[in-house]
Amino acid sequence: MKCAVGVDFGTLSGRAVIVDVSNGKELATAVHEYRNGVIDEYLRYSPGSSISSRISYGTGPGTNIRLEPDWALQDPNDYIEVFKNTIPAVLKESAVDPADVIGVGIDFTACTMLPTRADGTPLCFLSEWRDNPHSWVKLWKHHAAQPEANQLNTIARQAGFGNILDRYGGKISSEWFFPKVWQILNEAPEVYTAADRMLEAADWVVWQLTGVETRNSCTAGYKAMWSKTEGFPPAAFFKALDPRLENIVDEKMKRDILPLGARAGGITEQAAQWTGLKVGTAVAVANVDAHVAVPAATVTESGRMVMIMGTSICHMVIGESEEIVPGMCGVVMDGIIPDKPGFEAGQSCVGDNFQWFTETCVPETYEKEARQRGISIHQLLEEKAAAQKPGASGLLALDWWNGNRSVLVDVDLTGMMLGMTLLTKPEEIYRALIESTAYGTRLIVETFQKNNVPIRELVATGGLPDRNKLLMQIYADVTGLPIYIPEATQIGAVGSAMHGAVAAGSAAGGYDTIIDASLNMAHLREESYQPIAENKAIYDKLFAEYVTLHDYFGRGENDVMKRLKALKIRCSQ
Amino acid sequence: MKCAVGVDFGTLSGRAVIVDVSNGKELATAVHEYRNGVIDEYLRYSPGSSISSRISYGTGPGTNIRLEPDWALQDPNDYIEVFKNTIPAVLKESAVDPADVIGVGIDFTACTMLPTRADGTPLCFLSEWRDNPHSWVKLWKHHAAQPEANQLNTIARQAGFGNILDRYGGKISSEWFFPKVWQILNEAPEVYTAADRMLEAADWVVWQLTGVETRNSCTAGYKAMWSKTEGFPPAAFFKALDPRLENIVDEKMKRDILPLGARAGGITEQAAQWTGLKVGTAVAVANVDAHVAVPAATVTESGRMVMIMGTSICHMVIGESEEIVPGMCGVVMDGIIPDKPGFEAGQSCVGDNFQWFTETCVPETYEKEARQRGISIHQLLEEKAAAQKPGASGLLALDWWNGNRSVLVDVDLTGMMLGMTLLTKPEEIYRALIESTAYGTRLIVETFQKNNVPIRELVATGGLPDRNKLLMQIYADVTGLPIYIPEATQIGAVGSAMHGAVAAGSAAGGYDTIIDASLNMAHLREESYQPIAENKAIYDKLFAEYVTLHDYFGRGENDVMKRLKALKIRCSQ
Repeated sequence: MKCAVGVDFGTLSGRAVIVDVSNGKELATAVHEYRNGVIDEYLRYSPGSSISSRISYGTGPGTNIRLEPDWALQDPNDYIEVFKNTIPAVLKESAVDPADVIGVGIDFTACTMLPTRADGTPLCFLSEWRDNPHSWVKLWKHHAAQPEANQLNTIARQAGFGNILDRYGGKISSEWFFPKVWQILNEAPEVYTAADRMLEAADWVVWQLTGVETRNSCTAGYKAMWSKTEGFPPAAFFKALDPRLENIVDEKMKRDILPLGARAGGITEQAAQWTGLKVGTAVAVANVDAHVAVPAATVTESGRMVMIMGTSICHMVIGESEEIVPGMCGVVMDGIIPDKPGFEAGQSCVGDNFQWFTETCVPETYEKEARQRGISIHQLLEEKAAAQKPGASGLLALDWWNGNRSVLVDVDLTGMMLGMTLLTKPEEIYRALIESTAYGTRLIVETFQKNNVPIRELVATGGLPDRNKLLMQIYADVTGLPIYIPEATQIGAVGSAMHGAVAAGSAAGGYDTIIDASLNMAHLREESYQPIAENKAIYDKLFAEYVTLHDYFGRGENDVMKRLKALKIRCSQ
Repeated sequence: MKCAVGVDFGTLSGRAVIVDVSNGKELATAVHEYRNGVIDEYLRYSPGSSISSRISYGTGPGTNIRLEPDWALQDPNDYIEVFKNTIPAVLKESAVDPADVIGVGIDFTACTMLPTRADGTPLCFLSEWRDNPHSWVKLWKHHAAQPEANQLNTIARQAGFGNILDRYGGKISSEWFFPKVWQILNEAPEVYTAADRMLEAADWVVWQLTGVETRNSCTAGYKAMWSKTEGFPPAAFFKALDPRLENIVDEKMKRDILPLGARAGGITEQAAQWTGLKVGTAVAVANVDAHVAVPAATVTESGRMVMIMGTSICHMVIGESEEIVPGMCGVVMDGIIPDKPGFEAGQSCVGDNFQWFTETCVPETYEKEARQRGISIHQLLEEKAAAQKPGASGLLALDWWNGNRSVLVDVDLTGMMLGMTLLTKPEEIYRALIESTAYGTRLIVETFQKNNVPIRELVATGGLPDRNKLLMQIYADVTGLPIYIPEATQIGAVGSAMHGAVAAGSAAGGYDTIIDASLNMAHLREESYQPIAENKAIYDKLFAEYVTLHDYFGRGENDVMKRLKALKIRCSQ
């Protein structure tokens, strides 16, 4: 039996899985929580174990340096600890001989980036930089580069580079690579100067395993404005932003971008010590969590959208041609699978919204009922909400509690609900929130469809499909599309393992393409959700109302949400 | 010491107060709960004690006759029991000699109406009619005459009587007199035929005290379309509604309408037995709870609006000229005090909204905190909400959880809130609901002001001003007007006692006008709420947003609330 290992780096932990390459069966899994988690209030950290003797750690519990709101840092050592802890654990649990492990793949949150020396040493590992917050990893949800993102978007349009923005729904997010780099330059030019390399943490961990610096097409394309045909934006673009950035690509990055599934290198001696894998085991170039999930969800062709449904939703689609779709997060050739355009869109607030609701708006009587019956409050709400008929609550919401990612790309929008009466019950509000997120997905689906990206069915993965059957049925009824569920429970790690199998190649017992890997290693469950025609008919009416309000509040007719938000900031000071 | 008795008939109980006529001091108070309360599911009732031997009661626990939704009946015997229980109680507690009681006044909910024989016997007291729901008292909140109200409004406009509707904000409510009478005619023509009289319960209880059938200008004007200059609508109007109604006024009503404070008659022998009052004690014509509160709140002139703030708000204003103000509940000459136009407006959902919120949307952690600190959940929410600054939540709501009475007169509107984020807290929602009701009041105030009815200050009474200081300050800040609080704690009953003192007249130790009575018997507390300029400036901005959304959702630009409500009714079936 040939096996592959996949490692999925999340926001709070890393997870490894070892799978049978012939059929994708998950043989063992292991999780390691980051010791320093998300560093977002003070620059404080536990020293952890050093990854090499050249690294000088801080000696105490960290510093008293207070971080601004919207900061979110991580410790790169935590990623190494994931390798050290999880890969030996899955090897042991599965009793697989390391000689039978033909490949390793990883996926990561993005854009999660860091400055390093030319040899890959993170600046934050060096005592002279360790107390400077800008030397640490900036996590994907570090939002403090918003001023830089705003300037970038304005200058790009003014300087004639609007066509680049169009590939990203018209706007570059503060979460992405160049706003974060520019923030370092603005606020800590000495760190910028000291950094020989600026790179994605995804690529950094692959470097640590292989000793080879590579860049992958997924993060380069979706987060760093790279395109297969045009490469990175030209020096003139960066110069227009800031003369000091003019040569950033040549000075601090790399122009060689490898397609997904390509072999980055082999496991080094040191990485073999960390992991128990054999020296030389193939390692795939890095990938992103949502993107690696697509082939693991059986999707390697156009027409089927993968939804990774958790606190938020990522909508992933493979197309036939590189279309400009308004409000998507990006289109990248080679972005999901080689030689096809990969489209990404997203909703910023899905599971998060239900979590907010259950924590903020559910009365004590419901909590008591759930306890008495030994079920969770989510289960109780789902049960009560499932007893309602579509349209029977009279409620309608806009799912913007955390802004709108697609298709409006506007973080300043906020939530809205109407239709409440003195008889409105918590489960009606709960159901209306679920429905509003389904309308948001339908609008994304229809926007793709109208722009020549066909979508005929949905494949749903992430935490929500297993936790909430009502939600899945509502999504089917609202969109009118069937929804299928992949078998893999650790979709990210399995997708990474599949890329590891491709990096190994068929000669080594793996696969030559991710399509072959997906055909053999990815499967759907038998259960599916089919739209119910009579529900769909009612949701068509409600969706029409949603669209009217979506456009009224979201497209400038009444910017009350933005005015209230501006007032809120002023009044909170 | 000369005294007067006031009796305030509410929805669930009646309350008597005995006051010192010289200064309005409340000497004693007593409450009696209606044995049959609100009859709204089955026609079931306890027999109670019979008020005279001619009355034949049902013998069991009532019938199995199921009432339609929106029905709300009462038992007129419960009103007699209020007299029998409360007046002796206040005489006893205050130790006032009945000979020193110079007058009695009553106020009632309205329109609360019933069919009777020519001698005043309610049809529901007669065994042949007792099992017919239409023979009972229809309480103010009996809403089952909505079809009749809709027809009345349509036909009135078509048949050229729109000017009558204009005195009532353009629409007659299903709660009012003629829709209720018409429902009896439509659904139980035999009850309609058997009724010699159709009258307000307010006038009926005065009839029971005095043996004299009178009609008061307040209920006639606000609820039965009567005007001092034009009288009731002409026969042609009623004929246009239904030929059988053509002569309703002459056949089943009375054209003599007495002004408020007029003497209806004296206490009869029987009423003296019930109450312990002296035979011949002056009894004032009936009045309505909200209207009787106005002089008791020290207001007998223009420029000062009285707000009776409880589950809903009644806004009462005395004007100088009979203006047509869009969306008010009515303008009636002699409607509040003689020879002045009385204006009424209202908000359907104020205290009710906060009650809904605390029951439906407050998390268990807050309930626990309130219990631990030994305070109510309302107190906890008020405390947390008071710590917020205006504008700092980013939230805005439309206060339409129970439709909109003034100024849109539209029961089909529903609640709306926007601005929610994942950080929104329950107390922010609570405060936004309070603020939304304050915006609703400001819109009513401004609508009066724009239509030549001046308002320079507010006087607030009812349950809310004592319970929620934050709410009062928000109302002052939002409207920019000072708010004063009357001393009287039983504002309705005290107002009724004042009218009793006027019915007695100065010769008997009372007063010749309600103005004199108010000057002597009504007082304000020293505490008041003054608008805070910096808060007002922020609320001006928020109010402008409120008005935009109010008009967008309420004046036809986007009738989504009505379409959702229609869909809800269809989907709930």
